[in-house]
Amino acid sequence: MAIAKGPQAFPRAEYLRRLTLVKAEMARREVDALVVTSSANITYLTGNLTRMFSIHALVVSARDEEPSLIVRGLDFAGTFHHTFMARDSIVAYSDVYVGRADRNGFDAVIDFLHERGHANRGVGLELGYLTALAAEKFKARLPDARLVDCTKAVDWVRLVKSDLEIVVMREASAIVDAAIMRASEVIRPGVREADAAAEIVATQVRGDGKGPRATGVLPLLLCASPRTGVSHILWSEDVFRPDSQINIELSGNRYGYMAAIMRTFSIGAPPDRLRRLHEAEVAGLDAALEVVRPGRTCSDVVSAFYRTIEKMGFKKETRCGYAIGIDWVEPTASLQVGDMTELKPNMTFHLMLGNWVDEDFGYVLSETFRVAETGVEVLTKAPRELFTL
Amino acid sequence: MAIAKGPQAFPRAEYLRRLTLVKAEMARREVDALVVTSSANITYLTGNLTRMFSIHALVVSARDEEPSLIVRGLDFAGTFHHTFMARDSIVAYSDVYVGRADRNGFDAVIDFLHERGHANRGVGLELGYLTALAAEKFKARLPDARLVDCTKAVDWVRLVKSDLEIVVMREASAIVDAAIMRASEVIRPGVREADAAAEIVATQVRGDGKGPRATGVLPLLLCASPRTGVSHILWSEDVFRPDSQINIELSGNRYGYMAAIMRTFSIGAPPDRLRRLHEAEVAGLDAALEVVRPGRTCSDVVSAFYRTIEKMGFKKETRCGYAIGIDWVEPTASLQVGDMTELKPNMTFHLMLGNWVDEDFGYVLSETFRVAETGVEVLTKAPRELFTL
Repeated sequence: MAIAKGPQAFPRAEYLRRLTLVKAEMARREVDALVVTSSANITYLTGNLTRMFSIHALVVSARDEEPSLIVRGLDFAGTFHHTFMARDSIVAYSDVYVGRADRNGFDAVIDFLHERGHANRGVGLELGYLTALAAEKFKARLPDARLVDCTKAVDWVRLVKSDLEIVVMREASAIVDAAIMRASEVIRPGVREADAAAEIVATQVRGDGKGPRATGVLPLLLCASPRTGVSHILWSEDVFRPDSQINIELSGNRYGYMAAIMRTFSIGAPPDRLRRLHEAEVAGLDAALEVVRPGRTCSDVVSAFYRTIEKMGFKKETRCGYAIGIDWVEPTASLQVGDMTELKPNMTFHLMLGNWVDEDFGYVLSETFRVAETGVEVLTKAPRELFTL
Repeated sequence: MAIAKGPQAFPRAEYLRRLTLVKAEMARREVDALVVTSSANITYLTGNLTRMFSIHALVVSARDEEPSLIVRGLDFAGTFHHTFMARDSIVAYSDVYVGRADRNGFDAVIDFLHERGHANRGVGLELGYLTALAAEKFKARLPDARLVDCTKAVDWVRLVKSDLEIVVMREASAIVDAAIMRASEVIRPGVREADAAAEIVATQVRGDGKGPRATGVLPLLLCASPRTGVSHILWSEDVFRPDSQINIELSGNRYGYMAAIMRTFSIGAPPDRLRRLHEAEVAGLDAALEVVRPGRTCSDVVSAFYRTIEKMGFKKETRCGYAIGIDWVEPTASLQVGDMTELKPNMTFHLMLGNWVDEDFGYVLSETFRVAETGVEVLTKAPRELFTL
């Protein structure tokens, strides 16, 4: 029997709206077909949530309302279940393209472009995401096409969310709030980091147990003393010690949309240096959020942060975050000095103020926020505390 | 203060052994420097477990004992903490390479190759993993180098594990066994899929709570009725229903090394079709494992499986798995008809017998195994049952 469509995060009209924006960009670049290979961009344009471990691509044709998703046969049912698209918009290739040296799934994608008459027209590729070998295959097997690099073409469209997407981002934010509060309950001296992590990750899946559950989970980053100067590692098998510090960064996932948060925890009274850094960072966070509104730039926002903490005797060497959405980091607007991207309503950012001062000392604080019509909406709601346990 | 080395999964000698094998392969391909960008290959050659969200690369030089890891400054402390390497073998680049259109971290990697005298020699790249734009940058900025595609050069070395790696694979397998048994406890009619998933994922982190904990976690694949014909999706927000079926695939992670398992669960007595398919698959699994020993091929193993289930009235359209190790699927030996890779002691595989018969009906069963000196060692130990709940 045929599988039915699963619950859809968005109505068909929302996907068609996104596709219209992408097709306008394609027209500007004079491509008739855009081959999308970024997993996040495919989710954005189709609703797909199936984890594909085999080669696949979405082909957006300027002349068709729906795009076509070329997938390994194994992934047909899952992608049909998740996406807004009709059955015949999903094109399954057989396992003769799998695990072979002489051909792979990109041959199925290129065959499709030939069949649909794109082989001698402008074809867009995401050369910043596609591997070099795959790009060579497109060049070799589409000698008469005009191949155009369209890296980030879809990503820039994704930057401004619809109101429907913001609803989903709020749900993702509620999950991270629940998880960070769970961390404040389970981190205790003598508990193994991994065992606390198990409870926190479970909350990243379950949320608060009453509201929306997560649609996926990424492992949490948990950097405990003496590793608080480290940014991106997971829990260890050590036990939490008295008079130690824990930095946590975690995410919530709702239909692929991510919110993120960072908070710092102190077992025992925080040392003076940590307490002063926390105060400076909270002041910097407030100052940065104060600047957020349409018409301001990314650079404006972070400059307010840097100015504030410098006045209070601190500095931070790294950037202050990035646009956030499907699969976490969006590779477009960057919260750093010199990024002149103008803020628009419904852009969403992870204002990431992790400050790794020394190799063995750092502090973290962040919020996920939306640019609102006249200011800012902070989506993450957990207290902006240095949690003392 | 300087951060100390963390617990190391392997002694220095183990990494030097791996590097010797890779350098022999480099000599064969006449490259003086190999630029490794696959995350799994970097973990294999260094022990790194830091999650790097910024551009980074490992440069293996034929003339140096240790390789050099080029990372964003933010990731210096984490990569030094995790890897076997000396401080000066980790080269940090500053945030001026981050979030910019005109340059990125690969410029820092290419600068390093120039500084170390590799710019007019043979330089190996993993063109099957590197993006097309990154490869173009290497070509443009290393005009006098002879660039050689070395995709899978390190992966083929990884295929045969050392005894030390097998110890770690056994620990990863114990974690998956604990998680699959936890699934058999928490899946009950009326429970929300996501809430059961939360418990299972927690066990994927905690293991059995006594033995080794996980070093990471990937979300579990949980395909419940009416989605058992789907291979690669996560839990939903539905509740488990009486007289329904659940297919689970999950992994355990130990220092980056993965074991995997699949089992099928029936709430209520399994329908006849499911029971018969289970019997055929278990017989096919036994037959395949019976064939495993050094000197046999991947093709031999799976042929025994296909012959057995066909005699029992079933077939399976997809391949039967792949080599498994760091980050799950290894892109080398494939358990499919026609793959003539000869089995050698300490190769490890995920014998993956998921059989998605119809769009709305499938069954899953798998084991992680090691090729032993005279036969097979099955690393996953959970009962080969159709769990009836």
